[in-house]
Amino acid sequence: MEPAPMIELWRGDRCESAHLGHAVICDAGGDIVEAWGDPDALIYPRSSCKMLQALPLVESGAADAVGLDARRLALACASHSGAAIHTDTVRGWLDGLGLAEADLRCGSHMPSDKEAMKGLMCSDTSPCQIHNNCSGKHAGFLTLTKHLGAGPEYVDLAHPVQQAVRAAFEEVTGEASPGNGIDGCSAPNFATSIAGLGRAMAYFAGADGKAGARAAAAARLRDAMRAHPEMVAGEGRACTELMRAMGGRVAIKTGAEAVFVAILPEQRLGIALKIVDGGTRAAEAAITALLIRLGVLDAAHPAALKRLGPERNWRGIETGGLRTAPGFA
Amino acid sequence: MEPAPMIELWRGDRCESAHLGHAVICDAGGDIVEAWGDPDALIYPRSSCKMLQALPLVESGAADAVGLDARRLALACASHSGAAIHTDTVRGWLDGLGLAEADLRCGSHMPSDKEAMKGLMCSDTSPCQIHNNCSGKHAGFLTLTKHLGAGPEYVDLAHPVQQAVRAAFEEVTGEASPGNGIDGCSAPNFATSIAGLGRAMAYFAGADGKAGARAAAAARLRDAMRAHPEMVAGEGRACTELMRAMGGRVAIKTGAEAVFVAILPEQRLGIALKIVDGGTRAAEAAITALLIRLGVLDAAHPAALKRLGPERNWRGIETGGLRTAPGFA
Repeated sequence: MEPAPMIELWRGDRCESAHLGHAVICDAGGDIVEAWGDPDALIYPRSSCKMLQALPLVESGAADAVGLDARRLALACASHSGAAIHTDTVRGWLDGLGLAEADLRCGSHMPSDKEAMKGLMCSDTSPCQIHNNCSGKHAGFLTLTKHLGAGPEYVDLAHPVQQAVRAAFEEVTGEASPGNGIDGCSAPNFATSIAGLGRAMAYFAGADGKAGARAAAAARLRDAMRAHPEMVAGEGRACTELMRAMGGRVAIKTGAEAVFVAILPEQRLGIALKIVDGGTRAAEAAITALLIRLGVLDAAHPAALKRLGPERNWRGIETGGLRTAPGFA
Repeated sequence: MEPAPMIELWRGDRCESAHLGHAVICDAGGDIVEAWGDPDALIYPRSSCKMLQALPLVESGAADAVGLDARRLALACASHSGAAIHTDTVRGWLDGLGLAEADLRCGSHMPSDKEAMKGLMCSDTSPCQIHNNCSGKHAGFLTLTKHLGAGPEYVDLAHPVQQAVRAAFEEVTGEASPGNGIDGCSAPNFATSIAGLGRAMAYFAGADGKAGARAAAAARLRDAMRAHPEMVAGEGRACTELMRAMGGRVAIKTGAEAVFVAILPEQRLGIALKIVDGGTRAAEAAITALLIRLGVLDAAHPAALKRLGPERNWRGIETGGLRTAPGFA
């Protein structure tokens, strides 16, 4: 099936650019309630699956063995901005494990947080691996590595941590992954269908009352994300602003190359979407539209209008804006 | 006609994201030599048409009346990085006109040049309108405004400068523009077909030996761009690096929302392309592929490989890269 028109950028009286994508809404039973484009399209979920990658950390007992609180669990599922609240927490987490920045395998990049970036730039200081937006996920990997007594190269596909991640990922998506790529942070990223990713989000949404360590872990990670939106991304970012706008009712997560997921525990629904061209602005607009459609986000909220509404130029003149394409949401 | 597959982002052994677009190669007679997607697709050329917007500046005699050199003419066609070489030149240009930063109507934004950005951020200084990537184009508009003795609101659609731009734009594209939008810099941006934009680039390519002030102006602007690639964009940017890689044989220009054009005087060919999703990485990859195809850019040149080749993550591991889609270039 072809991807569906989802988001348009208008300028003046014409559509200037257009984005196609695939999206599914799944119920707690794992069935597709609604779909656009091709539910069987295979994608890399990228960072949108960090809560899946964190399941072994919690269900193994590794998280409790070192007393990880909800803020750290949220950070394990985060693509953080590298602000002080994020880097201080990761640093303290590594200290608690008796480990250091050099034990991470995520690589270094400049933080997106304005103040943190300014601090580094203006002091001619290079960012370190703790600034990497995935350092919370990697601190989680290191926590499980220590718990399992495994070796230091925890991003290797054959490492016990990644094998545990793969097993949890395949069970929760309900699919054998057709393969994996290497993510920006050097961890394996397992491919899945849009339907599989939506099914996984619905599993997290419906985890309450289900028996077993995995369901309990899913509920804990989901609730940690909802309770600490500031840890999942950062000030000004879509995940943080939209979760706050929904009053903590919904957990959402972005992934590179325009993937976005949402977990709606009250409705016991899961959402997964991918914009085929990888345009993040369109993934943010599309998840905004679907959350509005499902009644959990106010279309008039500033956080919603920032992703799906009028745009102004450098002199404040309205030039156009992002809209949903006919037939989508 | 539907847009054509043009650029793919691969990760591991699968295509992660894909970009569709429209492109034409036109000869000096204005005929389409080759096309992908729909040559009749209507687009906003955005900054890719700055050399068209500069035609009235030169053909009116306004540029010579104030002795604009080739560096300033290149800057009139530029989306510059706001580096010192750009901002010092615009400031000197305005001084020469007896005008000031406040006379500009482009608005202010942070420069993309790293050193300039660092200088402003670390001294807590706000950028001014001279930092706007379009300030050279606007200095050109002000030069023509003064020459015509017109009013200060030179970005108004009814202003003599914009009426002169519209007339030149329509004559060189060979089409009546179906309308205009307001650009990021507040100037009107006239819509055209991809074929019309390609025809305009072929006009610039074949301007030598043609009679009249317009053809002479087109050749001068084109040659100013080729002689001063550093003024057209900035260090590290696609226009500057690719023009240098081609040894000044070709003039190229990017436009917002993934438009790219090229002027090939030796071949008397013009190229215009638009990636429908507005993804700049794909527009840069697509123009790179077409310039390689036409034999003016070496596929192995670092500037080409940077836009169309393998990508590495934060730890230097190759994760995949951008490729041309089957059937394109």
